[in-house]
Amino acid sequence: MNKVYLDNNATTMIDPEAYEAMLPFLGENFGNPNSLHSYGNATHAALGRAMDQLYAGIGAKDSDDIVVTSCATESNNWVLKGVYFDILKEQKNGKNRIIVSSVEHPAVGATAAFLESLGVEVTRLDVDHNGLVSPQALKSVIGDDVALVSVMNANNETGVIFDIKSMAEIAHAYGALFHTDAVQAVGKIPVNVAESNVDFLSFSAHKFHGPKGVGGLYIKNSRELTPLLHGGEHMGGRRSGTLNVAGIVAMGKALENSVKFLDFERSQVRRLRDKLEDAILEMSDTYVVGDRQVRVPNTILASIKGVEGEAMLWDLNQAGIAASTGSACASESLESNPIMEAIGADAELAHTALRLSLSRFTTEAEIDYAIEVIKKATNRLRAISSSFSYAPSWHKSGL
Amino acid sequence: MNKVYLDNNATTMIDPEAYEAMLPFLGENFGNPNSLHSYGNATHAALGRAMDQLYAGIGAKDSDDIVVTSCATESNNWVLKGVYFDILKEQKNGKNRIIVSSVEHPAVGATAAFLESLGVEVTRLDVDHNGLVSPQALKSVIGDDVALVSVMNANNETGVIFDIKSMAEIAHAYGALFHTDAVQAVGKIPVNVAESNVDFLSFSAHKFHGPKGVGGLYIKNSRELTPLLHGGEHMGGRRSGTLNVAGIVAMGKALENSVKFLDFERSQVRRLRDKLEDAILEMSDTYVVGDRQVRVPNTILASIKGVEGEAMLWDLNQAGIAASTGSACASESLESNPIMEAIGADAELAHTALRLSLSRFTTEAEIDYAIEVIKKATNRLRAISSSFSYAPSWHKSGL
Repeated sequence: MNKVYLDNNATTMIDPEAYEAMLPFLGENFGNPNSLHSYGNATHAALGRAMDQLYAGIGAKDSDDIVVTSCATESNNWVLKGVYFDILKEQKNGKNRIIVSSVEHPAVGATAAFLESLGVEVTRLDVDHNGLVSPQALKSVIGDDVALVSVMNANNETGVIFDIKSMAEIAHAYGALFHTDAVQAVGKIPVNVAESNVDFLSFSAHKFHGPKGVGGLYIKNSRELTPLLHGGEHMGGRRSGTLNVAGIVAMGKALENSVKFLDFERSQVRRLRDKLEDAILEMSDTYVVGDRQVRVPNTILASIKGVEGEAMLWDLNQAGIAASTGSACASESLESNPIMEAIGADAELAHTALRLSLSRFTTEAEIDYAIEVIKKATNRLRAISSSFSYAPSWHKSGL
Repeated sequence: MNKVYLDNNATTMIDPEAYEAMLPFLGENFGNPNSLHSYGNATHAALGRAMDQLYAGIGAKDSDDIVVTSCATESNNWVLKGVYFDILKEQKNGKNRIIVSSVEHPAVGATAAFLESLGVEVTRLDVDHNGLVSPQALKSVIGDDVALVSVMNANNETGVIFDIKSMAEIAHAYGALFHTDAVQAVGKIPVNVAESNVDFLSFSAHKFHGPKGVGGLYIKNSRELTPLLHGGEHMGGRRSGTLNVAGIVAMGKALENSVKFLDFERSQVRRLRDKLEDAILEMSDTYVVGDRQVRVPNTILASIKGVEGEAMLWDLNQAGIAASTGSACASESLESNPIMEAIGADAELAHTALRLSLSRFTTEAEIDYAIEVIKKATNRLRAISSSFSYAPSWHKSGL
């Protein structure tokens, strides 16, 4: 066993079919779709097919818009800043507040903080011990002054799934728009915008076996939204910049295939995930965040008491296994896991976070190997750890 | 002769070496550079090399920043909106105005109009008969109330080169920042930020034989600029979103190679361009915008009286030749060429615009073929054109 990739929430390997689909558009078929000649035209059929795949993949209607962006970070920034210019800046209808969860990805969290610096009121919803925000929590703080509620579909670190349908309903009851960052949901669980009735939904191709550098924003009923990227007439004037044809084609194919594998994800990926999770929980003084019933099928955020997350990563990496201590977006800072902190874990525990995220390409042999390595590493690291001493107050049932 | 691509100002074919360089990072080497494991680490050397190639390619210093974006449209939006939040919004030091040329790409032009809608004063500099803005013109309108001057390095339609060094100097004398959209300059003429002393410079890989979906923004002395994409710690916290590793690697290689070919561009590409241009000018009642001495070596914006631009494109396309009537970014609207209008051409003339843009991959045989086809098409279209009648007031020397 040479290399095992268990960091699929950070990024994924590309679907071989998506890879094959994009190559012609990187190579000989390089025309600008906006050009009025055969090089331009030669991209249109593939682009149309890709857009159809995107619409089908998330259940969008023809009257809705899906605008291709460079990534979900752009989509998230666009929604929050667009709503700022459309509503919040002038406090239209008395609306000067947004609500986000306290565990949003920084692309939402930092953008909300930026709006706050511009005078927007920001309410941050705390999460419970499962890392979840309940619709009731939203209901208790929302009011007519809220322009936008932005709550992720599934959390990047814990994998817990939020009840966005109920929350969208609450938002709408108060005349607020509802946005969900669905980066960690698309390709892992069914995502259907018609059913959840969200106004905006962000996604990134590289999280569902597409390439990096391309993503999208779903916009219900094609409602107006001040562009983040002003300029030419690309994407109906909504998002300027020459179309990344190869990326769009690959994203469409990757989404189509990911949706085909949702049953497999729910059954086989989940079985392997549970096997790995069970093996971790068999060890003493270990904990996994979030009830399995409310999590995407591929994710484990574990805490192994007495084992620093970075030390575990090092041992795993030496054995060829890729994992993370949490979001890759903040991994360079080597800080404690912010989700662990958000759910109320103490500082020591937050430093023991280990995120393992599978994909449909993960094999049983890889999981068996990972179990073996994690057990060995836990023993080794606990033996040399000065911080680990058995505390009777420590239970798997809580933090 | 099957296919001849003369629309390199819209987009370019990918450099085969750039293509080869990017494939491993689309395929097996798919790690997220921010991840703390071998998949992440495996991207670092190539990313470092690519960034070195970018710095060397535009003459940036280590103390400067080059931030990778999704395209120059993003870079342009970022500069104008960043300066809005940093200076214009609060009118710091009494600065509430920006100056742009009247022939900027829509990524600057439409963003300036957006800032105008927010209360920023926008001064638009007219161009002369060459399609140029003189430093004197800038000097005559600038004042201490100007926060930013944004003038392109080379025009996308005419190819004329602006004296950005002199204009940056004027801007600085008034305490204003200077930005240049160098999309059409990079890879065609030497671009050196240390020499021109600009504060910001935008570029897009796909204009110099890199892939679509990746570009950059140069920032002198790494000065602060409110991000357009808030979020994680990517690019030093300046531009969030998972790095498009394959795109960055390919962009670096493409720029390195383009710079190597600058002499070739200046000599051979120019020779072929001039040959094509001479052949067009040999025909009666034809005109080319902008003195050759002030143009990038690859571009011709011609007017063939009595021949609608779109009709010519159609004939060319039938013969396998790709060209354009102007910017691809607005081509779908089939409007008259805005640059033609800006330099004072009448409506009829503006509808006869034909842009031909070569690259280092253009061959002499292709140019000979293009000359033959353009002459034939001109004869055919003039014969059936009701609008063409010889007017003695029409001269090559002016509009």
